[in-house]
Amino acid sequence: MELLKEARNGNKRAIARLITLAESEAEEASHALQQLYAYTGGAHIVGITGPPGSGKSTLTDKIVKKLRKEDKKVAILAVDPTSPFTGGAILGDRVRMSDLNLDEGVYIRSLGTRGKLGGLSKAVHYATKILDACDYDYIFIETVGVGQSEVDIVKTADTTIVVMVPGLGDDIQAIKAGILEIGDLFIVNKSDRDGANRLSIELQMMLDLNAVKSEWTPPINMTVASKSEGVDEVVEKIKNHFVYLQESGELTVRRRQRLETEIIDLVIQKLTTYMTKKMSKEGSYEEELNRVFNKETDPYTLVNKMLNESLK
Amino acid sequence: MELLKEARNGNKRAIARLITLAESEAEEASHALQQLYAYTGGAHIVGITGPPGSGKSTLTDKIVKKLRKEDKKVAILAVDPTSPFTGGAILGDRVRMSDLNLDEGVYIRSLGTRGKLGGLSKAVHYATKILDACDYDYIFIETVGVGQSEVDIVKTADTTIVVMVPGLGDDIQAIKAGILEIGDLFIVNKSDRDGANRLSIELQMMLDLNAVKSEWTPPINMTVASKSEGVDEVVEKIKNHFVYLQESGELTVRRRQRLETEIIDLVIQKLTTYMTKKMSKEGSYEEELNRVFNKETDPYTLVNKMLNESLK
Repeated sequence: MELLKEARNGNKRAIARLITLAESEAEEASHALQQLYAYTGGAHIVGITGPPGSGKSTLTDKIVKKLRKEDKKVAILAVDPTSPFTGGAILGDRVRMSDLNLDEGVYIRSLGTRGKLGGLSKAVHYATKILDACDYDYIFIETVGVGQSEVDIVKTADTTIVVMVPGLGDDIQAIKAGILEIGDLFIVNKSDRDGANRLSIELQMMLDLNAVKSEWTPPINMTVASKSEGVDEVVEKIKNHFVYLQESGELTVRRRQRLETEIIDLVIQKLTTYMTKKMSKEGSYEEELNRVFNKETDPYTLVNKMLNESLK
Repeated sequence: MELLKEARNGNKRAIARLITLAESEAEEASHALQQLYAYTGGAHIVGITGPPGSGKSTLTDKIVKKLRKEDKKVAILAVDPTSPFTGGAILGDRVRMSDLNLDEGVYIRSLGTRGKLGGLSKAVHYATKILDACDYDYIFIETVGVGQSEVDIVKTADTTIVVMVPGLGDDIQAIKAGILEIGDLFIVNKSDRDGANRLSIELQMMLDLNAVKSEWTPPINMTVASKSEGVDEVVEKIKNHFVYLQESGELTVRRRQRLETEIIDLVIQKLTTYMTKKMSKEGSYEEELNRVFNKETDPYTLVNKMLNESLK
């Protein structure tokens, strides 16, 4: 396939086209995906999450710039939770105004949820696989840690970075409780603000209370991303974590788990598409629905009937 | 079924047991659900959403107290987004310390996501249906408007209330953009705080910019829920909206749509359970997964094979 070849030759337009095709589950993409899977596994996949306003994008940009100085090929997937009502981005349609866009060795893409069940994880899955097969050394997946689906995505990375910031309200900081367990690396960004040391200490205390799960002790780094302060250290920690993953064998464990999750997601996604199509096609479904609405039958009886008709 | 009869007689313990059975998809619940569906349709279902810290719980409690003075039977379903990592509540395990618990005419239940795909909407669906069939006049579904799934749930109510509060950061207020379109009634709570009038004016301006979709103009109410200020007016607006829904015929339209969504959700939920069971049972799946992991085949080929083996 010509497109696949061009993408693997580093043509960013071909890569973009391939991701779009995969997202829309076009038939021509399906063959390309099957072929390119063999080339995956080389990229270090790094998830970055944190509350809105923690400066994740700036931090990611600075990390990427540092890696570019080492001539690494880097991709950024910015997961933008879209409103299920307008289709627009919840956090405002922030076009990433970055000089990174002009860099031939950097690929940036925004991924929205578009209100579809499983749509986000599917989009991230395809984009990651394609970029991985196109020899990107690092793939950063940046999400806002507000909803479960966003956190689920970050959880599948090789290395997960949790960005905190001093001075957010209690409610938002409470999200910490759930996020502590996924962080391989914690960052207190905007650390020139009041409360940065306190946040760092609190975080350390909470991490110390957590049961030890592995030989990796998640470090806490202080950064002021806007001034590039502390960024070099973060890059070093990202690399250290990858070395740890490789040497401990945990990389294989994580990636095996990720593969399993991905396959289950794909199956559910395909089943959903199949059922939705089936239901919109069959005129009799409309009739059945009316019967339920008029209380001549009930939803559970209808659902069982539909499943019996679909499953072997 | 004895349990169903007791629940319909107003036994709160029987109701609680029935909801628990339904959530766990126990066989004995399935028959009860089929039977009780015929009794549904009488309750006014009210969704309440807003950012963390907007005082939704206090407001809901005050609204419920007002309705209790009119001798209405009221249920509150508090949807608590749980962390996918700990199983605990993201926003802290706030037990609702309310004297409403002691009121025989009030049923309160917390529903968590428990990290399961579709688990939350399923739990809300079953609880709503059961309470509706047990002759509750009002069912309040209270959620934190952070994730898409939470918002999806509120969207299915007859009447949706969006609670705002002055003085939250820009990032959180940006959620407004998506939420404007679902609100039938807007509330500026903690309206004794600085910025309440400004928020109300901004909100009005944004609502005015929205295309008119119906003859109902969403009102904006100012409240100080903690002091019960403005609560009576909110209750009046809730009732007005229901009258509007009935007289305009929109109630039928909304409920028909909700039923359709519910049925699709149930189908997907059952399919997911079916596939997950199937995959964990078959020893050959483990082998197939290993083959994918070792790049002997690819995930997409495996997924297609699994679907071909399952679907008629």
